[in-house]
Amino acid sequence: MAAAPLTDFSRLCVHTITTKPWSLEQACDNYARAGVTGITVWRDTLEGRDIAAAGRRLMEAGLEIVSMARGGFFPAPDAVGRQNALDDNRRCLDEAAALGAPHIVLVCGAVPGQALAESRRQIAEGIAAILPHARAVKVKLAIEPLHPMFADIRSAINTLKQANDVAAQFDDYVGVAVDTYHTWWDEQLETEIARAGRLGKLFAFHLSDWRTPTVDLLNDRGLMGEGCIPFRQIRGWIEAAGFRGFNEVEIFSNRLWAGDQAAHLVKIREAYLAHV
Amino acid sequence: MAAAPLTDFSRLCVHTITTKPWSLEQACDNYARAGVTGITVWRDTLEGRDIAAAGRRLMEAGLEIVSMARGGFFPAPDAVGRQNALDDNRRCLDEAAALGAPHIVLVCGAVPGQALAESRRQIAEGIAAILPHARAVKVKLAIEPLHPMFADIRSAINTLKQANDVAAQFDDYVGVAVDTYHTWWDEQLETEIARAGRLGKLFAFHLSDWRTPTVDLLNDRGLMGEGCIPFRQIRGWIEAAGFRGFNEVEIFSNRLWAGDQAAHLVKIREAYLAHV
Repeated sequence: MAAAPLTDFSRLCVHTITTKPWSLEQACDNYARAGVTGITVWRDTLEGRDIAAAGRRLMEAGLEIVSMARGGFFPAPDAVGRQNALDDNRRCLDEAAALGAPHIVLVCGAVPGQALAESRRQIAEGIAAILPHARAVKVKLAIEPLHPMFADIRSAINTLKQANDVAAQFDDYVGVAVDTYHTWWDEQLETEIARAGRLGKLFAFHLSDWRTPTVDLLNDRGLMGEGCIPFRQIRGWIEAAGFRGFNEVEIFSNRLWAGDQAAHLVKIREAYLAHV
Repeated sequence: MAAAPLTDFSRLCVHTITTKPWSLEQACDNYARAGVTGITVWRDTLEGRDIAAAGRRLMEAGLEIVSMARGGFFPAPDAVGRQNALDDNRRCLDEAAALGAPHIVLVCGAVPGQALAESRRQIAEGIAAILPHARAVKVKLAIEPLHPMFADIRSAINTLKQANDVAAQFDDYVGVAVDTYHTWWDEQLETEIARAGRLGKLFAFHLSDWRTPTVDLLNDRGLMGEGCIPFRQIRGWIEAAGFRGFNEVEIFSNRLWAGDQAAHLVKIREAYLAHV
């Protein structure tokens, strides 16, 4: 069953990549002023900052820190590359802990020309390797399946079923992030959302729309309502699976980044009520 | 098991879209001269021609007509649109019969904003409606699953499993076309190729590569070897499933169309032996 329309912003989270031209401080002030209640922090946004202080500033502004993006990229052609990835993921976990984020999102990685099954094996191995550190710093891991058009270089995990299959091998510190943009086309989406819910592994729910035509694989996502994704249907499945977390707006868009970000934030609020 | 390298061109088919700048006559003469043995004809290439005469010319040049592309696009928001699609598919079947093509490839269609399940229902309904005509003119129907990045507007059938599910509802006049570009990422590909083989529905095998980075969703495919697709692995699955038809090169590429087409054809032959 499709979800009923949202009537307030108590579960609206905005990912800082959505307003990429803004610094973390600008995002913090503008989100809070606009009544946004949650924030996900793109790791690059923290560059050169005292991370604990940045986290305090967000919380003092009334924003709940929903997650930090992103870790992952575990597969590599050689052991040195895979070890570097583990080191970087542990640093990412430390930063998330300092910030106060409950989980990091994992864009799991892939190596062009390496068999996808081998990359998935390396991903599971990488998660196993960093999991003790994740528990030590109390930051969970959310595996995000990426659209199959990113299977060459960004992730060998391209369906929620694959993400669930990996997450199911681990304890409650490993779950999944469901992004409408990456998963909307998948016939098994409803079933796998329900499975993630049963497993207690539904950590995050991300929103952006699929535009027609899409002119860039990476940075041409749409604001909700600009494309063809049935948000209320998918949110209905998410909520039926027991998810009560934030609805997180994460839009990579050269077009939207080029415009006025304050106006963009107003439209995000409108689209959230009208389409999510 | 991966297939052994190919050592001759006895099963090399080239799709005329691969050398888009060439007329049908130029493609015919150049393919035959280069030792290509099969040809698939893009329907637009026939514009303004006596189709039966065009078919005779191809056969007299020693080319086997492998298929005609493309029918499909069954879904529409209203009955008039769906009826128009049926009429056009019947014309397409007539043209394929006149040409001498044993099957047409179906790019099945989708409507942005219409539920994918509803589009798939309309696709099955459309195939059922044109099937008597297909039998009458002795031209089969090959359902081609398209990459999920085309789920908005080109096809609601995005995995070989979905194509098999639809084909399995019909008799031996309905099968599937497996395109490496559209399906390489799919964890279920080997299983579903085997299933198509068991069902006697493996009608066609298309080749092009996935480049990193891919800069255009429609027209940035690669020559085999330019990307990350494991062709020998997939051809091994295809042949293990009993397929003995043509290995069909079908490359949509603004980059390759911009170059000299005779040199392009030389490289296709080289890539065929080196990578397929």
